Amino acid sequence: MYKAPVEEIAFTLKHVAGMADALEEGQFGDLSDDLVDAILDEAGRFASDEVAPLAEIGDRQGARLVDGKVEVPDGWADLYRHWAEGGWNSLVASPTYGGQGLPHMLNVAALEMWNSGSMAFALGPTLTMGAVEALTAHGSSELKEKYLHKMVSGEWTGTMNLTEPHAGSDLGVMKTRAERRDDGTYRIFGQKIFITWGEHEITGNIIHLVLARLPDAPAGTRGISLFLVPKFLVNDDGSLGARNDLHCHSLEHKLGIHGSPTCTMIYGDGKFGDEPGAIGYLVSEENKGLACMFTMMNNARLAVGMQGVAICEAATQKAVAYAKERTQGKAPGWSGSAMSPIVEHPDVARMLLTMKALTQGARAICYTCAHATDMAHHSNGGKAAHWQERAALLTPIAKSFATDAGVDVASLGIQVHGGMGFIEETGAARYLRDARIAPIYEGTNGIQAVDLVTRKLPLSNGDHVRGFITELRDIVSSVRGLNRDGFGATADRLEASLADLDEATEWLLARLAEGNTVAALAGATPYQRLFGLALTGAYLAKGALADADAGGFERMALCRFAAENLIAETAALKDRVINGEASLTAARALLG
Amino acid sequence: MYKAPVEEIAFTLKHVAGMADALEEGQFGDLSDDLVDAILDEAGRFASDEVAPLAEIGDRQGARLVDGKVEVPDGWADLYRHWAEGGWNSLVASPTYGGQGLPHMLNVAALEMWNSGSMAFALGPTLTMGAVEALTAHGSSELKEKYLHKMVSGEWTGTMNLTEPHAGSDLGVMKTRAERRDDGTYRIFGQKIFITWGEHEITGNIIHLVLARLPDAPAGTRGISLFLVPKFLVNDDGSLGARNDLHCHSLEHKLGIHGSPTCTMIYGDGKFGDEPGAIGYLVSEENKGLACMFTMMNNARLAVGMQGVAICEAATQKAVAYAKERTQGKAPGWSGSAMSPIVEHPDVARMLLTMKALTQGARAICYTCAHATDMAHHSNGGKAAHWQERAALLTPIAKSFATDAGVDVASLGIQVHGGMGFIEETGAARYLRDARIAPIYEGTNGIQAVDLVTRKLPLSNGDHVRGFITELRDIVSSVRGLNRDGFGATADRLEASLADLDEATEWLLARLAEGNTVAALAGATPYQRLFGLALTGAYLAKGALADADAGGFERMALCRFAAENLIAETAALKDRVINGEASLTAARALLG
Repeated sequence: MYKAPVEEIAFTLKHVAGMADALEEGQFGDLSDDLVDAILDEAGRFASDEVAPLAEIGDRQGARLVDGKVEVPDGWADLYRHWAEGGWNSLVASPTYGGQGLPHMLNVAALEMWNSGSMAFALGPTLTMGAVEALTAHGSSELKEKYLHKMVSGEWTGTMNLTEPHAGSDLGVMKTRAERRDDGTYRIFGQKIFITWGEHEITGNIIHLVLARLPDAPAGTRGISLFLVPKFLVNDDGSLGARNDLHCHSLEHKLGIHGSPTCTMIYGDGKFGDEPGAIGYLVSEENKGLACMFTMMNNARLAVGMQGVAICEAATQKAVAYAKERTQGKAPGWSGSAMSPIVEHPDVARMLLTMKALTQGARAICYTCAHATDMAHHSNGGKAAHWQERAALLTPIAKSFATDAGVDVASLGIQVHGGMGFIEETGAARYLRDARIAPIYEGTNGIQAVDLVTRKLPLSNGDHVRGFITELRDIVSSVRGLNRDGFGATADRLEASLADLDEATEWLLARLAEGNTVAALAGATPYQRLFGLALTGAYLAKGALADADAGGFERMALCRFAAENLIAETAALKDRVINGEASLTAARALLG
Repeated sequence: MYKAPVEEIAFTLKHVAGMADALEEGQFGDLSDDLVDAILDEAGRFASDEVAPLAEIGDRQGARLVDGKVEVPDGWADLYRHWAEGGWNSLVASPTYGGQGLPHMLNVAALEMWNSGSMAFALGPTLTMGAVEALTAHGSSELKEKYLHKMVSGEWTGTMNLTEPHAGSDLGVMKTRAERRDDGTYRIFGQKIFITWGEHEITGNIIHLVLARLPDAPAGTRGISLFLVPKFLVNDDGSLGARNDLHCHSLEHKLGIHGSPTCTMIYGDGKFGDEPGAIGYLVSEENKGLACMFTMMNNARLAVGMQGVAICEAATQKAVAYAKERTQGKAPGWSGSAMSPIVEHPDVARMLLTMKALTQGARAICYTCAHATDMAHHSNGGKAAHWQERAALLTPIAKSFATDAGVDVASLGIQVHGGMGFIEETGAARYLRDARIAPIYEGTNGIQAVDLVTRKLPLSNGDHVRGFITELRDIVSSVRGLNRDGFGATADRLEASLADLDEATEWLLARLAEGNTVAALAGATPYQRLFGLALTGAYLAKGALADADAGGFERMALCRFAAENLIAETAALKDRVINGEASLTAARALLG
């Protein structure tokens, strides 16, 4: 059973991702190191003791649509209530609406733990947090006052309604329509699919944020507006009024995250109310809906990245425990008379160390991304701009690298379990089933790569990414300077990986400068992977350096394993970025 | 829906794997090119039209244990009967027992198609074929006469009973016991797990081959005997007698291959018969059971490799079809006014071409392995020994590379489908769920790597593998000699990959020679992958060369894509083989 790695999480937050410095410099107000530890401890306890034990039943029972109502797995309604009562829904929310105003870094660490406990469960709150963020940034003060308090406390949940059957990655073609009414409200009509936690009975109300198009809106993405559409209308005194004209038509039958209801939502077909049309309230201005979405997109993408980290951690814990207990054969050098634990076999050790290195690398990248968001939030002027760019640059890498790692690590976890890994009761297979959605939703990892290459690399004319690579090189210099045997060839290996990153980056910037988007996009995914691997090496080294004076052999050893066994892939990835396009383009004719 | 790629399969068999030459040289008797085509055509029709349409219901209903009887999915009993009536169970079996005595190459190609249609369905016949092979090689003439005819025709199915809860990869510790009886029979007592198609009502009898230990047997793997244990005893006139004392206790709840009953079998607990003990008949000699297993292990492992190829093919077909139909966004360079099909996006094209290249590479490796088996079977003396070594060398690579490719390609297939890939009704997720067992059973891929490095590389003191690499270099020389623009940098890239293979091979042989097994085993899995990738490049080139005179642009383009985008990974893999062990060993302390 999953046990939250609170110490490791705290170490990574503080000494790799930069929280220790930020606390010392007072960036986070009077937040103290002790309070951080206390919050992490309690989140870890809740995730390990309350969430994780209900993951399996959630997977097995799944969410069910019965007589128009969505039933969640046994125990989940109480679990949610305990979770909200613990204040976990409100960590980063604004104190104006009852939130605790804590750094994103803390929330991200907590999200990791909820998702390790049960990704399907944690998804609901993740969506509510996204809705709170969008509403906080763009809602009128009237809307905020009326809805945010209860969404922050968790008394109501929130959803994001973007996707339609023909409009997934490309939202510009959506058809859901909004009609103006004389009283300033709107009526919404249409169908939305893949709506996470779109319907349930756990809370008294559900606040849907829905993208729709006005009749006279411009075509494409500039003609989309955002509406707040509550399941139950809310009276001025805050009490609940009539049921709004929206409902869940069906639930998807999915590979994983079974406990999370994935709903097809119907708006305005006349099932409820006097006249057809779900009553909606405009958020921000007409036709500015997609811009509102972009505000929260970075955090939402990072939250999905945390699902990847979470699965990595949980799958690794499970596999390591099994490999230490299961005996089979005799490993080379094994002196016992009985069979050796399979962890003694070099191939099994290789799988487990790979899992550990990817987990810690993905975690470090994601936490560092959250740190940049916090720093941007707590800085001004040029410093804020710098950190905004850093968060923007890191977000696609964090989302894609961590979610790809989630799939790879979960798959390795099954392999470590041998035949037992394929049996559902073992639980290793669930991690793969759950993990598999994360590289897809909130922008596929291919779209993250397009974003990284075409929008993030050009920030500050390429100088932001160049400065970042210089920072990473400083870490490698420190490794070289420390000159410890335990690092082996780490410095050489990381230096090579950063040279690969540098070369690939300059090549892409040159292609963008000359307007050769096809060439740049052909290498976008290998480049994104290259960046993530190089960061993994650098951040494992940063952690090992922070730990070195305390004799931290373990971090040094894992960093060395990553440097000498995993990071060398950057050379092939760089080659693919720079030399792969011609053959890719030539072979596209094969696809008809 | 899957459509068997009969033309591609025939091309690979004949022009990459060596069947054309073998036919011309009369290696396969009077088997003609036309007959090969006719058999492939008909197998393709059956797989596409009869097997594939029943895959989804098989997955959804699964096998069920009801009142001690195993029920298979709707339609599967008839499907099996049609399949056996078509003669598909008997392709390679000996004509003495009603088989057709055709080459393994043909059977392997047919197996690919059955498995693409439905891996869960094809598993049953695959096990029967293994039992037929073991019995043919090791059974007494009496046993063979009594059982083989009906197993070859498919009137009865067969199983292999090896695994026990504590004895999976290491069979030496198994506990199932056999007792001698005065009449020359044995009584079997024990529990076996993970028994594929261990119980069902499709056929009138099931012939179990069971490994068990005699009371006075030596410890370990040299004390294991093989027994034939029929579900129903068989009278001397061939009619069925009493029910034997064995039954299916339960079915596993698995990630995939739901339609295939995976049984826990109980032998000799007294549920049937006058006295406890399942009646068994010795196959071969006492304590020679594991040797009997080894006879059929190569073919069984190759059959699992074919499952990997099969999933690759089916998943790729599905993803390509979706990517051509689904429109979303506008790809760079897209001139249409509507959205472009997603196949136009470079990142999607990269995924699809990677899937295609891995599919064709895995297929070529597996067919080439079958060719070696056939050549060994149809040759004498030194030539037979040569081909035996080739089959032995290729088997672990075929099994591991193809099954890893199955998982990777199925996962990419989900990614191409976006959100729809995660919805079970789409069918892309089933491929991943089914594929995930293949790297595990019939010897995990880690065990294949141990076999490759410690038992196959040393064949003929390393000269066999050296000769093989020389043959592969000849292919590259031909690419260079042909000097076609369409090949791009293929020759350089493949040459580099073979140099990596060469260097890693010599390094491993040197470690084995000095008795440093730990160092050799630490790099076994990366080495196995390196070998598979290098072979993929070489065999895609071989196909392109065979096609070049007919203007085969497509094969050349795919080969070039693989050479310039996928094969460069061999450098990092070689590095891992040669330089990875020190850090792996140092970091093992982290695993506790």
